[in-house]
Amino acid sequence: MENFYFVNPTKIIFGHDAEMRVGSELKPYKKVLLHYGGGSIKKQGLYDRVVKSLQEAGVEWVELGGVKPNPVFSLVEEGVRLCSQHNVEMILAVGGGSVIDSAKAIALGACYEGNSWDFFENKAKPQSALPVGVILTIAAAGSESSDSTVITKEEGLLKRFVSHSMLFPKFAILNPELTYTLPSYQIACGIADISAHIMERYFTHSKSVDISDRLCEAALKTLITYGPRAIANPTDYEARAEILWTGTIAHNGLLGAGRIEDWGSHMVEHEISGIYDVAHGAGLAVVFPAWMKYVYQEDMQRFVQFAVRVWGVDYAFGESERIALEGIERLERFYQQIGMPVSLQELNIPEDRLDEMAEKATRNGPVGNFKKLSQADVMNILKLAK
Amino acid sequence: MENFYFVNPTKIIFGHDAEMRVGSELKPYKKVLLHYGGGSIKKQGLYDRVVKSLQEAGVEWVELGGVKPNPVFSLVEEGVRLCSQHNVEMILAVGGGSVIDSAKAIALGACYEGNSWDFFENKAKPQSALPVGVILTIAAAGSESSDSTVITKEEGLLKRFVSHSMLFPKFAILNPELTYTLPSYQIACGIADISAHIMERYFTHSKSVDISDRLCEAALKTLITYGPRAIANPTDYEARAEILWTGTIAHNGLLGAGRIEDWGSHMVEHEISGIYDVAHGAGLAVVFPAWMKYVYQEDMQRFVQFAVRVWGVDYAFGESERIALEGIERLERFYQQIGMPVSLQELNIPEDRLDEMAEKATRNGPVGNFKKLSQADVMNILKLAK
Repeated sequence: MENFYFVNPTKIIFGHDAEMRVGSELKPYKKVLLHYGGGSIKKQGLYDRVVKSLQEAGVEWVELGGVKPNPVFSLVEEGVRLCSQHNVEMILAVGGGSVIDSAKAIALGACYEGNSWDFFENKAKPQSALPVGVILTIAAAGSESSDSTVITKEEGLLKRFVSHSMLFPKFAILNPELTYTLPSYQIACGIADISAHIMERYFTHSKSVDISDRLCEAALKTLITYGPRAIANPTDYEARAEILWTGTIAHNGLLGAGRIEDWGSHMVEHEISGIYDVAHGAGLAVVFPAWMKYVYQEDMQRFVQFAVRVWGVDYAFGESERIALEGIERLERFYQQIGMPVSLQELNIPEDRLDEMAEKATRNGPVGNFKKLSQADVMNILKLAK
Repeated sequence: MENFYFVNPTKIIFGHDAEMRVGSELKPYKKVLLHYGGGSIKKQGLYDRVVKSLQEAGVEWVELGGVKPNPVFSLVEEGVRLCSQHNVEMILAVGGGSVIDSAKAIALGACYEGNSWDFFENKAKPQSALPVGVILTIAAAGSESSDSTVITKEEGLLKRFVSHSMLFPKFAILNPELTYTLPSYQIACGIADISAHIMERYFTHSKSVDISDRLCEAALKTLITYGPRAIANPTDYEARAEILWTGTIAHNGLLGAGRIEDWGSHMVEHEISGIYDVAHGAGLAVVFPAWMKYVYQEDMQRFVQFAVRVWGVDYAFGESERIALEGIERLERFYQQIGMPVSLQELNIPEDRLDEMAEKATRNGPVGNFKKLSQADVMNILKLAK
C-alpha cells in the first residue's frame, strides 16, 4: 500500500426532497450565483423548487445558465465577471458534472486577478476559491464531491483539468428523483463514466491494496446490477439511488487511497470529446476496452482478478490469458447492453484526426501509469478502438 | 435506501513515518495537550519522535498520560482542568480508541461551564469543542475518524457515549509500523471490534442498500484475509496496513449511509466491559455471535447473504436456515482462529450479574433496531453467550 493523504469534506445530503434543504445550506451567504445548464431544470420544476427554497431562506442570487456538456471557458469567464459585478460569495451549481465543473472554474477565477486559464495550464496555483454547493441531476462525473474540474477552451479545443482541495464542494444534494427525466442514453453515459472512474483506480501496480480493490469491486458490481435496471425503468428510485451514490463514492478519492492511479484512458478520451461532440462517458466506453486489450499483459493477474471478482468468471488454473480477455469482453458486453458504443465508428469519428489526438494527449509526455503511454501507444489504442 | 447525511472531514495521513508530520499539522495552535495512555509510546520511541516533531515546529504542549482501556471520566476531568489552566487550544491523542475517546471528552469539557458528564446523560448538547488530532497506535475503535466518544464513569460503572459532528478529529495519522509492538491479543481484539462496527451496520431491515452492503462485505473480507496474517507476523507491514485502513473505513460513517444501523450488540457489550475488566473487542466477539443466533429469524435472507457473500458458503435453494447458521458459525470460528473468546465463560464472567447488565443495557428502553431488544431479550442473548 502506498503512503497517502485522504480527506473529503463535502457534506452529502441524500434522499427524497433533499433539494428543499438548499436554502438553509446557503443562509450564511449574502449573494449566490445560481449556475445551470439548459432548460431541463425549469421543465422538471427543479428550478422553481430551488428558487422557492432560496426565497424562504432570504438568500439573494444572480443567475447564469447555458452550460453545455464539455463546459467551455468562455462561459466561465462570463461567470467570473458576474461574480465580480455582484459581489457573489458562493456558487450554487444545479446540474451534472459540466455545470459543477464550470462552477468550480468560476469559483477559482473569481478569486484571481489574472486570466484563470492560467490554472489549467499550470501557470498559476490556486490560492483561494469561492465555495461551491451542488444540486446534482445526473450520476456520472463525481464532481459533486471531487476536488477537480475539467474545462474546454474553444480556441484550439483544449480540454484541461485542475485539481485542488479548495475545489471540494461544501455540500452536495443528491435526490435520485431528480434523475428521472434524463434520457436513457445520458444515464448510460453516466454509468460508463462512473465505471471508468473506478477502473482508473483499479488498474494499478501498487501491491497489497486489497481493501481498496474490494471497495472498487463493490462499486463496479453495484453498477453492473443496477445500471440496466436504472435504464429500463426511469422511476425506479432504488436503482437510481444505488447508481447515484455509487457515482459519488467512485470519485470522492476513497477508492484510490494507497494506490497509484492510472488515468491514461481519461487523457485519451479528453482528446476525443475535446474535438468531437461526444459525451465523455460514451468516449470512455470506447477507449477503456481498447486500452485494456492493449495493456493487459502488463499485469495479467490483475485482469484475472477483475474477471473473476467483478464479472464472476470461473477461475481455472493455467487459463490466465483466456480469463483476462473474458473479463474485458464482459465489460464490452455490459457497455453494449446499456446502449453505449464500443468503437469510434459507432461514434461517427473518422480516422483522419487520430494522429492529432495522440499527439495532443501526450503533449506533456507519456500518460497513464499502469502502462506509460507514448504517442505511438495512444495511436495504437485509438486504432484498436476503431 | 434511507435518506441520509454523510460527512467526514477528518484528514487521513497514512503510511511510513507519517507521525513525523504531526508538528506541521499542529503549527496553527499555541498550546497543545499531549494525551496518551501507559508507557508503551515511550518504550517504542514514538513519544520521542512526536516531541521532536512538536519542538521542530515550535509547538508548546502540556501532557496528560495514564489513559486506560475503557477510559474513565475522572481522567477526563483532570484533562479539562489542565486545558483551562494552560489555555490549551488543541488536544493531540497518541494511542488507541481509549486515548482518542478520552481526548474527545476533554475537548467537549474544556468548552463547557458545567459538568461535562451532562453530555453523556443527554442533559446538555455540545455547543463547541476544542479540535482533536490523532496519532493512532492500534486498529480497532475507529475513533480516529468518527464523531463519537465512549467514557465510563467510575461511580456506578456507567459506560456512556456522545456523538456530535464537532468530535470528528481534524487529522488522524496512521502508520502501520506503530502497531508492530502490540500484543497479538490486542490486535485480535481490535479486529473483533472492527468487524463488529461493520456488522452493526450490515444487519439492517433497510431495503435496497446494495452499494453499502457490498462495501461492508469488502471490509469484512479484508479483515478475514489479513487478520490472521497480521497476528501471525507483527512486522507484516502490508497486513497491518490493510487492517489499519479497514478499521478507519469501518467506522467513518460511510458503511452506514442510507441504512438504519443496529448497535444492539454494542449496547449489551458496554455493560459487560463497564463492569468487568474486559477488552471491548473481546466482549463483542462473545456478544455478536450470540446476538446473531437470537435474531437471525428476523430476516433469514440477510443472514444467508452474509454467509454466501462474506464467508463464501455455497448457496443452495431451500437451505436458507442451514446457510444462515453456517455463516454465524464461520464468524465464531474466525474469532477463535484469531484467539478471541466466544463465551462469557472464557472471559471468566460469572452469571450473577447478567440480570444487572440486561437491566442497565435497556434502562432507556429497548436497544438495537434489527430486533428491538427488551431486557428479557438481552438476558436471553447473555444466556446464549454463556
